Amino acid sequence: MKLSFANERVLAVVAHPDDAELLCAGTLARARADGAAIGLCVLCQGDKGQPAKPISNLAAVRRRELAAAARLLGAELFCAGVSDGTLSDTTLTRQKLIAIFRRFRPTLVLTHALEDYHPDHRAAAALAEAASWFCASRGHKAGAAPLTAPPALWWMDTLNMSGFVPGFYVDISPYLALKEQMLACHRSQLARSKRKDFAPLADLMRQQCQARGSQAGVTAAEAFCAHHAFKRGRAW
Amino acid sequence: MKLSFANERVLAVVAHPDDAELLCAGTLARARADGAAIGLCVLCQGDKGQPAKPISNLAAVRRRELAAAARLLGAELFCAGVSDGTLSDTTLTRQKLIAIFRRFRPTLVLTHALEDYHPDHRAAAALAEAASWFCASRGHKAGAAPLTAPPALWWMDTLNMSGFVPGFYVDISPYLALKEQMLACHRSQLARSKRKDFAPLADLMRQQCQARGSQAGVTAAEAFCAHHAFKRGRAW
Amino acid sequence: MKLSFANERVLAVVAHPDDAELLCAGTLARARADGAAIGLCVLCQGDKGQPAKPISNLAAVRRRELAAAARLLGAELFCAGVSDGTLSDTTLTRQKLIAIFRRFRPTLVLTHALEDYHPDHRAAAALAEAASWFCASRGHKAGAAPLTAPPALWWMDTLNMSGFVPGFYVDISPYLALKEQMLACHRSQLARSKRKDFAPLADLMRQQCQARGSQAGVTAAEAFCAHHAFKRGRAW
Amino acid sequence: MKLSFANERVLAVVAHPDDAELLCAGTLARARADGAAIGLCVLCQGDKGQPAKPISNLAAVRRRELAAAARLLGAELFCAGVSDGTLSDTTLTRQKLIAIFRRFRPTLVLTHALEDYHPDHRAAAALAEAASWFCASRGHKAGAAPLTAPPALWWMDTLNMSGFVPGFYVDISPYLALKEQMLACHRSQLARSKRKDFAPLADLMRQQCQARGSQAGVTAAEAFCAHHAFKRGRAW
Amino acid sequence: MKLSFANERVLAVVAHPDDAELLCAGTLARARADGAAIGLCVLCQGDKGQPAKPISNLAAVRRRELAAAARLLGAELFCAGVSDGTLSDTTLTRQKLIAIFRRFRPTLVLTHALEDYHPDHRAAAALAEAASWFCASRGHKAGAAPLTAPPALWWMDTLNMSGFVPGFYVDISPYLALKEQMLACHRSQLARSKRKDFAPLADLMRQQCQARGSQAGVTAAEAFCAHHAFKRGRAW
Amino acid sequence: MKLSFANERVLAVVAHPDDAELLCAGTLARARADGAAIGLCVLCQGDKGQPAKPISNLAAVRRRELAAAARLLGAELFCAGVSDGTLSDTTLTRQKLIAIFRRFRPTLVLTHALEDYHPDHRAAAALAEAASWFCASRGHKAGAAPLTAPPALWWMDTLNMSGFVPGFYVDISPYLALKEQMLACHRSQLARSKRKDFAPLADLMRQQCQARGSQAGVTAAEAFCAHHAFKRGRAW
Repeated sequence: MKLSFANERVLAVVAHPDDAELLCAGTLARARADGAAIGLCVLCQGDKGQPAKPISNLAAVRRRELAAAARLLGAELFCAGVSDGTLSDTTLTRQKLIAIFRRFRPTLVLTHALEDYHPDHRAAAALAEAASWFCASRGHKAGAAPLTAPPALWWMDTLNMSGFVPGFYVDISPYLALKEQMLACHRSQLARSKRKDFAPLADLMRQQCQARGSQAGVTAAEAFCAHHAFKRGRAW
Repeated sequence: MKLSFANERVLAVVAHPDDAELLCAGTLARARADGAAIGLCVLCQGDKGQPAKPISNLAAVRRRELAAAARLLGAELFCAGVSDGTLSDTTLTRQKLIAIFRRFRPTLVLTHALEDYHPDHRAAAALAEAASWFCASRGHKAGAAPLTAPPALWWMDTLNMSGFVPGFYVDISPYLALKEQMLACHRSQLARSKRKDFAPLADLMRQQCQARGSQAGVTAAEAFCAHHAFKRGRAW
Repeated sequence: MKLSFANERVLAVVAHPDDAELLCAGTLARARADGAAIGLCVLCQGDKGQPAKPISNLAAVRRRELAAAARLLGAELFCAGVSDGTLSDTTLTRQKLIAIFRRFRPTLVLTHALEDYHPDHRAAAALAEAASWFCASRGHKAGAAPLTAPPALWWMDTLNMSGFVPGFYVDISPYLALKEQMLACHRSQLARSKRKDFAPLADLMRQQCQARGSQAGVTAAEAFCAHHAFKRGRAW
Repeated sequence: MKLSFANERVLAVVAHPDDAELLCAGTLARARADGAAIGLCVLCQGDKGQPAKPISNLAAVRRRELAAAARLLGAELFCAGVSDGTLSDTTLTRQKLIAIFRRFRPTLVLTHALEDYHPDHRAAAALAEAASWFCASRGHKAGAAPLTAPPALWWMDTLNMSGFVPGFYVDISPYLALKEQMLACHRSQLARSKRKDFAPLADLMRQQCQARGSQAGVTAAEAFCAHHAFKRGRAW
Repeated sequence: MKLSFANERVLAVVAHPDDAELLCAGTLARARADGAAIGLCVLCQGDKGQPAKPISNLAAVRRRELAAAARLLGAELFCAGVSDGTLSDTTLTRQKLIAIFRRFRPTLVLTHALEDYHPDHRAAAALAEAASWFCASRGHKAGAAPLTAPPALWWMDTLNMSGFVPGFYVDISPYLALKEQMLACHRSQLARSKRKDFAPLADLMRQQCQARGSQAGVTAAEAFCAHHAFKRGRAW
Repeated sequence: MKLSFANERVLAVVAHPDDAELLCAGTLARARADGAAIGLCVLCQGDKGQPAKPISNLAAVRRRELAAAARLLGAELFCAGVSDGTLSDTTLTRQKLIAIFRRFRPTLVLTHALEDYHPDHRAAAALAEAASWFCASRGHKAGAAPLTAPPALWWMDTLNMSGFVPGFYVDISPYLALKEQMLACHRSQLARSKRKDFAPLADLMRQQCQARGSQAGVTAAEAFCAHHAFKRGRAW
């Protein structure tokens, strides 16, 4: 039994440049292979993810790393340019995100879990949830014409799996290699792994895909939970 | 076994002009019949709920629709005048709502569930919860004198029942007709139903009252959950 | 706001002779005062609740203590006579309990929480839940004629409140004294309190009524949670 | 996005002859149309579901009704022959069910929710869960050879939706008519609807499919929740 | 079995001057006795906690009461000076709190539960959670050097225990007397108890310590729940 | 911060001969090193855990494997001798387990989670929970004298972590090697790993300890959840 993403337009809404690589890139890659259009919306600049040896133009560096990863995936890239650690669900940022939704016109949105460990991630989740409603509201003016219907919305796993109750699993076994290549683009962040105060991201990601895979009977999986709220619910 | 609302002062705090009609008007009508005083506090203008054929002075139109519905119910009406889609739990809006609480002086507040599908609804819930505490705090200056005790607070069902776990049910069978008449006042919104991107509200409302009624052994019911927080809890 | 038990027939289904005194006697007393008929069904003999100085004919002693407490309450008493520590949801015991339901014909059943601390209590809960369904099934032969409809069912608090999430509270302030008198009938059990391996039951009971009262804004309360399952749900 | 049941062998394990019609027949019909093999395992005889005017050979009547419904669906039928109201998770009944699993060899099992309203349904759920594990254990001797791997297992919705949290929805819009025809085969049960102590089953079923459909954006849906336990979990 | 706080640096982050006394002072006292360094960070001034007879310079009075209580405990005191009822998780207040974390350098943070009854408490919880992450982020500039690792974080009980599910209990029996002395320092607040709209705080606190103690087999206990989010989780 | 098991008597109650190795052996080894007495109670014979090439005297073989593992740990071994797949919470097996409790006299019991994936594991959990209460009841006759107080009880993680919400984590980093050696004793079971229908147990165990370790900031951890029921709760 397989979910097909064939006619979908999948938009991942994440906080930082490497979050999709950690939590949903396998599913995005699989959807792409199924024929879906993929969008990647990164709300923060990644400007505070400094390695031990600080990088002065970090935001620009991370933007390039991100662009490289998005190219590997074949995803259209959207950046909201908010400074790390300051993301919150304000009217202004909501409007920005609604406009992005109206440009990409997703049928499915993937975003962080509301119970995620990082304040920026939780803010991204609140923003994506709000935008998933307002993007289809005729009365809300923001960028292009409103969508004809709100997209579905799935909450992503948390890093380390703490506090997340999977609703279902997506088999990403054939796409784990691409996920690793994408993560490898984020060299500024992998550099952080060398200090003891930062987990080795690549190991963490692989370990998590294996653990979720074990729960689901495959080599590698990503876990999600569907948002069943009004008009965002779907029957398969 | 029946709950009597006889000596209560019931204030519904909702986001948009037609929200009470969808989620708690039956209970308000029943409380009114029991002899309770009814207040209806609508935080947003409803200015973005545009039908396919846009209405230029929509906020004014909806205000009139709302007033007509409130008259049917015999409710005192309070409007906070916030623009749709921008409601949030700020100090300013909180102060406005505390002042409304101090005017109406509720013993019971009905508001949206924290897990509701609409960002404005969740903001209304957060505001009502905050006001239910601060309205009785002598140190908080806002409008009239503080209440002598915080009101009880009940969370309302969500539209479509997704994600809401009922704590108890109120039998509204004799008041379903009035609920329908009240909803019928909101002509600008019923007009939206004709497009496929908007559910036929009257059907949705009736279907939900029946489903909740089936769960509770009556023709029509509304579901609620009591907020058991400090000083808002009650024993019946 | 008060729930009236006026026309109800309330049956408490508990495991041991003193369980009602600990967890629901205040509500039973109040229902009695409202004019309800009260039944008390005790499934086990209490034959293993030995104090430090063992009582040889303990089951008989406890039966007398129980009868005295039931008299104070004005409750009709039903005993199923199962040996302590062996209660389980078998067809035989189920049939016994269905027959009791068909004699007393309750409209409301109070029983232990499924998450209770004591294996006999959990078995009593499972039995009461099953009987609340089968008592109204024409095809099930057990004692008198089937009820015309299943009774409502409420789960009682746990001793010490661990693991129980109250759905609502019943104000028992005027009935706390009677509850204490009823508990005082169980002298064989109060004797156990003198050893350090057994909590002083009267203190524990009073402390719990106060704590639930504090949560609900009254001097003393008992907490319950309604079972919303098919045909056992009610609207108030 | 659609789940395809094409290569599955789907076995519904229910307690009574009409339970599949109420809770999963739409999904079974859809799976059948996808090309899946369908099995229907009914554990009880339905011998106690008496209408007002009792039917003397009720078990035989219901067996015929069931066979007619299964024919409409094109399902292979398995009956365990337990008397209504006595189903429990014993070694003997477990063995019977394991043997049925080893004959039909399911890849996906649908069964009642553990929190269902009916004691027989909960027993069926426990039995199906146990059999989903032991059917693939080489050391357990029961009927044919063990399966090479445990099937996936999905919990079905409860009647009336009380207490069930959907994990995902299956669109059954094109199969609602067949579901109604199947339910119409159970004439002995529909006869019960005429008394006020029994809900009109056909209405209840249709209302529930609509309500679940509203939550999921389709005309009619059935809700399920996947069992993620060891070896029963799947990635899609 | 005992947890030792010997080498910890424990920082309580609370909203109002008397919140630590109500919810965690016993644990702080015990940690102090174990040899831990104790910090107490109070985010609001307490300027709106007016007794019936208003105190004009209330913030100053409460600051003195707080200082006296902190002295009894031997805690380093940090005050963020926000006005009561206006606390929220803004970038500015977050930065203030991050700077406080970087001065005290906690290994363990105690803060309000996210489901607490008071809006300021919930804001304090959100701020402490955010600061527990950002305090260790090299890219975030705020006061002193970043911590080498995020502290552990425990959620405190709610006043009245409503809505809080304890993860574990800390035995504070030997420290209850000190907790009471600390609470007695807050004379402006105890004065509020005389009116019927304000619970007698000392009774409430003692009752809660006893109830949690009963759940945990000791005279007096405080309940907590560990935050298991990324890098805040710990193994004991 | 560390929990010390120094004066404890820790009894693991598991279903099959290799379950402790998979879920709690690290904690047992650490408790042993702290000076605790360790008991290992295995309820089933393991007689149905057949590898591809069946072993005729499997129960005897597994008994030897188990004894070897217990010797490595320094644990006193108790076997209840129930046949695999037939374990249930009957009066008889309960009595057997109560007698074992009264011989070993535990202060802390570790057992399977109630939500575990395996029916025998869930039965073991129910039995251990029941025994943790009845072992201290003077009225229950079973083997030696009753304990003076019920032991604490912790629920263990599930295999694969599905459905288990950790309450706290025990650092077992120094004991992972011993855990692996103990598991290696179960050669009959490791032989099963070679077939594709059985997970490679050693990998699964190591992966799980790492994943739980990642959540808790250590190399390897085991997750538990405390049972807070009456008299089984503890304050640390």
